[in-house]
Amino acid sequence: MSTWLLPESLADILPAEARRIEELRRSLLDLYRTYGFELVAPPLIEYLDSLLSGTGGDLNLRTCKLVDQLSGRTVGVRADMTPQVSRIDAHLLNRAGVTRLCYCGSVLHARPAGLLSDRELLQIGAEIFGHAGFEADIEIIELALASVRRAGVAQARLDLNHPGVPRAIVDSDAALAGASEEVYDLLSTKDVPGLRALQARYPGLRPETTEALTALASLYGGTETIARARRVLPALPALHRALDDLQALVAALPGHEFSVDLADMGSGYGYHSGVVFSIYAQGWHDALVRGGRYDGVGKAFGRARPATGFSLDLRKLSGGLPPAGKAQAIRAPWGADADLVAALRRLRDEGEIVIQMLPGQPQRLDEFTVDRELVLDDGTWKVRAI
Amino acid sequence: MSTWLLPESLADILPAEARRIEELRRSLLDLYRTYGFELVAPPLIEYLDSLLSGTGGDLNLRTCKLVDQLSGRTVGVRADMTPQVSRIDAHLLNRAGVTRLCYCGSVLHARPAGLLSDRELLQIGAEIFGHAGFEADIEIIELALASVRRAGVAQARLDLNHPGVPRAIVDSDAALAGASEEVYDLLSTKDVPGLRALQARYPGLRPETTEALTALASLYGGTETIARARRVLPALPALHRALDDLQALVAALPGHEFSVDLADMGSGYGYHSGVVFSIYAQGWHDALVRGGRYDGVGKAFGRARPATGFSLDLRKLSGGLPPAGKAQAIRAPWGADADLVAALRRLRDEGEIVIQMLPGQPQRLDEFTVDRELVLDDGTWKVRAI
Repeated sequence: MSTWLLPESLADILPAEARRIEELRRSLLDLYRTYGFELVAPPLIEYLDSLLSGTGGDLNLRTCKLVDQLSGRTVGVRADMTPQVSRIDAHLLNRAGVTRLCYCGSVLHARPAGLLSDRELLQIGAEIFGHAGFEADIEIIELALASVRRAGVAQARLDLNHPGVPRAIVDSDAALAGASEEVYDLLSTKDVPGLRALQARYPGLRPETTEALTALASLYGGTETIARARRVLPALPALHRALDDLQALVAALPGHEFSVDLADMGSGYGYHSGVVFSIYAQGWHDALVRGGRYDGVGKAFGRARPATGFSLDLRKLSGGLPPAGKAQAIRAPWGADADLVAALRRLRDEGEIVIQMLPGQPQRLDEFTVDRELVLDDGTWKVRAI
Repeated sequence: MSTWLLPESLADILPAEARRIEELRRSLLDLYRTYGFELVAPPLIEYLDSLLSGTGGDLNLRTCKLVDQLSGRTVGVRADMTPQVSRIDAHLLNRAGVTRLCYCGSVLHARPAGLLSDRELLQIGAEIFGHAGFEADIEIIELALASVRRAGVAQARLDLNHPGVPRAIVDSDAALAGASEEVYDLLSTKDVPGLRALQARYPGLRPETTEALTALASLYGGTETIARARRVLPALPALHRALDDLQALVAALPGHEFSVDLADMGSGYGYHSGVVFSIYAQGWHDALVRGGRYDGVGKAFGRARPATGFSLDLRKLSGGLPPAGKAQAIRAPWGADADLVAALRRLRDEGEIVIQMLPGQPQRLDEFTVDRELVLDDGTWKVRAI
């Protein structure tokens, strides 16, 4: 096998794309900073227990594991940075009030999330800890929408759901104890025959529960779906609290285009506890941003704090944007002459790209449009158009 | 064991430090861009064969290994990005002339390089491929010096060496065939008794070789060391070519403070083939930057190209700098009022940090100095000093 082949679903990022990802990274981190989000950087690997604290089986399957040579314990390469940032909030910062944190780093998946997915993502995100009110959710959703807007994505669509809705129905029937993951999977694929077949396999299951689950599978559409759910779903207190949360958020975000999918459980990592959202846009086959409330995660680190946040993959975001333009550059000869060196330094300090031609070698500069050159004219170095 | 403990020699980077590292990252990548270096991003993991192509045993020991779930083959988490960037030059770009590439990413070490070293580094670097002349080495050395200067490091010292010097002596005596790694280790620690003891263990060893090796152990100091080496070391052609290379570089870099250590083999990863350099500065216990010529690496990828470059760890660089100052921020009340929202957007678009106080929660903002507030004054939102 050739030494230059890469493992499946992994890729090198070449110049034009790498530069654009770098620019998106800066632009989004700067955006989060103007809202007061402080940057943190957790390590690439951690003990598996910490990495998976408070999360579901999906994250476990997606995490690459290895043995730490110093401790002999199993460590994982992070597959999601959100639990790491919760750990930082819970233990390292240890603040009483609201903390806003943001981050950007590579994460690795043992298996790709989908047929077209990469196994390495450049995850960027923002999280608010210590505030249980819907005001924090609104700030997070607005920041997520501002992120895709700043990246140049037109017509982003916000999709809302709430894991409390399916969970309330499953929890209301003792016959489904232990079958919750299976039911959530059937709901997420809207598998109505599969949901009806539960009746035969769980004999104690009440017919009302099956009715509620099949009704839930068709509860998607515009924001009117929330009112429809109140009419067709059973009057469980937890379910109505979840619908109230959704209604309050929709009311607080006027002027946005929403869709609602009440059968969805969110990101799939199983740590969400409140309203969950995704942002979709033309040009991306899958959600571009995922976020929501996950008040439980900090508990595993000894300090349960309300938390809400979002994240996105910068590589995926960049991949769906139109091709980036080339930067303009100046060509210069090689030489050690003090005037030339001074001219090079001055131009570069001004932010110009100046490329010295090394002796005896042609040069292709794929990322740049070389439109000017530095030449010695009447004893001084001058820039002139080519 | 607590879930919030991290493995040894790994750490979270907290806000003030994380922000400074981010600023250094941008500043250095922008510097490299003004010289025409194009950014690339190789993957976090690769097949072990590719990662270790053309490198020595040290890099192998330092690489964390795991089994790729998709192929069943052994992959490694990169411990050094330089061979990856060589692979990109050799195969993906496939250009005939000079190519300048730069990169910045996390690398992981299975074991820390030293007692005070971290196992996760944020490696940033720049490489010139396709040019064998000393002009490329000069551009690389000047760029490395400009990097530490731009980071605010005062009084950087450049240390030069050339693996061709020890290699020529070891290769000149057949009795040392197979013992080269051992001899290089003895030389790098200046272990003269150990070098003398070689005589007893390798019976065919010529006394002149032992004399040359012990002389080499004391060949460090200023640039006059190169002339001294010509007098005391044997007149081997490869050795004199290496000394000529060093002399040419010193002559081409006037006005710099140099030291020379001829017994040193460079970074330790074993891929260097020509002049090697390190930059040291007050406040860092170890070299801050390492670089040099490594013409052989691309051969493993089917296309041997001349190559010279350097890299440094941004976390280490940041760790030795004086503490960073705090940014100034504006406090604002929470609210959905359209005028307030417009005022917030305008200030943030201007780059101001504006932090909304979420209802009912105190807030500590460790990274910021909150010196102004946004208040409603006579019907309009105004910024005033606190």
